[in-house]
Amino acid sequence: MGMHVVFSVGTAGSGKSLLTSALREWLEEKGWGVYIANLDPGARNLPYEPDADIRSIIDINELMEKHGLGPNGALILAVDMAAARLHEVLQDIDEASPDYLLVDTPGQMEPFVYRPSGPLIVEQLPGTSKVMLFLMDGWLVSNPLNYVSIQLLAASVRLRFPVPFVQLLTKADLIEDQVDRVMSWSSRPSELEDAISSSSDGEAYLMHRRLLSMLARGGYIEKPIPVSAVTRAGFLSLSSALANILSGGEDLQD
Amino acid sequence: MGMHVVFSVGTAGSGKSLLTSALREWLEEKGWGVYIANLDPGARNLPYEPDADIRSIIDINELMEKHGLGPNGALILAVDMAAARLHEVLQDIDEASPDYLLVDTPGQMEPFVYRPSGPLIVEQLPGTSKVMLFLMDGWLVSNPLNYVSIQLLAASVRLRFPVPFVQLLTKADLIEDQVDRVMSWSSRPSELEDAISSSSDGEAYLMHRRLLSMLARGGYIEKPIPVSAVTRAGFLSLSSALANILSGGEDLQD
Ligand SMILES: Nc1nc2c(ncn2[C@@H]2O[C@H](COP(=O)(O)OP(=O)(O)O)[C@@H](O)[C@H]2O)c(=O)[nH]1
Ligand SMILES: Nc1nc2c(ncn2[C@@H]2O[C@H](COP(=O)(O)OP(=O)(O)O)[C@@H](O)[C@H]2O)c(=O)[nH]1
Ligand SMILES: [Mg+2]
Ligand SMILES: [Mg+2]
Repeated sequence: MGMHVVFSVGTAGSGKSLLTSALREWLEEKGWGVYIANLDPGARNLPYEPDADIRSIIDINELMEKHGLGPNGALILAVDMAAARLHEVLQDIDEASPDYLLVDTPGQMEPFVYRPSGPLIVEQLPGTSKVMLFLMDGWLVSNPLNYVSIQLLAASVRLRFPVPFVQLLTKADLIEDQVDRVMSWSSRPSELEDAISSSSDGEAYLMHRRLLSMLARGGYIEKPIPVSAVTRAGFLSLSSALANILSGGEDLQD
Repeated sequence: MGMHVVFSVGTAGSGKSLLTSALREWLEEKGWGVYIANLDPGARNLPYEPDADIRSIIDINELMEKHGLGPNGALILAVDMAAARLHEVLQDIDEASPDYLLVDTPGQMEPFVYRPSGPLIVEQLPGTSKVMLFLMDGWLVSNPLNYVSIQLLAASVRLRFPVPFVQLLTKADLIEDQVDRVMSWSSRPSELEDAISSSSDGEAYLMHRRLLSMLARGGYIEKPIPVSAVTRAGFLSLSSALANILSGGEDLQD
């Protein structure tokens, strides 16, 4: 079937690494061969054992020392270097020939999203089909004001990567009583508008409303899939969405 | 006149620190008292001497070691700590009582923008009036596709901070022959549309066009001020924009 590539992006702490780990276990239980590439040069204590790892060719502390860089500069340089040396990072992948390659991206999105290297990596990675998961931190976006600004961010990120996007609402286990409410916002923008009006006023209220209605009219408030990397809630929906996009409907669900 | 607070935000390398430095010199030449607060815990080699500095109370390397964090986690923790200990960072400011407080923010925007701490800092900083400069890297956004995604990012960032926003097109000296073209995009979206159609096709073209027309219809394509922190091009326009917003028109121009 060739190799399917699944990228995860999202703001720091949105749950990219833990989802990558949980998704591997889930897919492996279904019998698929899964390979994880970690592209976060600054990761400590990953919740999984990566098969390919940017850290094996690039040492962030060494970059800081050698080039007199602070952590910002070093993280950026590392991602740029990874783009140039992608074949080294992925040197064993041909032999492994997994069904799925899960790509975990830097904790902070910025060096991956708003520089040329991230899009270049997405383009150059081999694979028969690619998809990008955009993770919205469930705890963050259960606040309606945060929800609107993260939806604008999602639209911006989406433009950077010419591959199909799937929005996830993460940490569903932590916001159990809020999930239905947040989900309703994507199908009924008027409910989001009500929520905005009860959490803001004046200029802030007007601005959120205007941008929301702009997004809603443009069809840019998407229905995310609520998931939990801890309880696996939503994994069935997630894996069928992936199946639909990646293999045109091939069944991954059991 | 009280203290005016000017924050600079923008993607890594957009020119926040150098602009902060050049703006201080400019304002001082005009006779104003200026104070710079550096809130980038990971800064190395700042182009100015900060009067207040997050690094004086928080050592990023120590955070990494003590808490077993990578650079991502440490940068985030540092900004969160700065929000809680803002009075310590700014302990001498009352005595100095500057006319302007220029606030330089973390190299990567994310820990400042998409966590509660940044908005809290903006809210809690003392000052009679506040403004936020959103820096678009001139070199980056002279590509029309990048321009659209950075405009969406700008709209997203703007929602996070309930203070007036001014968009800047930075590094004007580096893109001299492109400045007029980029500026025309904000007044005539159809020119941006043409530029998009010559740099993309298929799905990417459609998506950029849709989001652009969404932004344009919502009135969210703003006219940035082109500036150069090297040649001071645009500083007159910038300082009158600041004067208008901060003091309701008080003349800063000479
Ligand atoms: N309860 C719960 N915690 C989660 C979930 N996903 C991630 N987390 C926690 O959120 C924090 C950030 O997750 P991480 O995967 O490192 O985020 P990343 O920065 O996007 O890679 C960690 O403490 C995770 O354990 C989830 O689905 N449920
Ligand atoms: N030519 C030119 N270079 C600039 C200008 N502003 C910033 N730079 C350079 O761009 C790089 C990033 O600038 P910096 O202020 O550190 O960006 P920050 O990460 O947003 O603080 C540095 O090498 C600066 O010297 C400018 O107006 N003109
Ligand atoms: Mg991670
Ligand atoms: Mg800086």
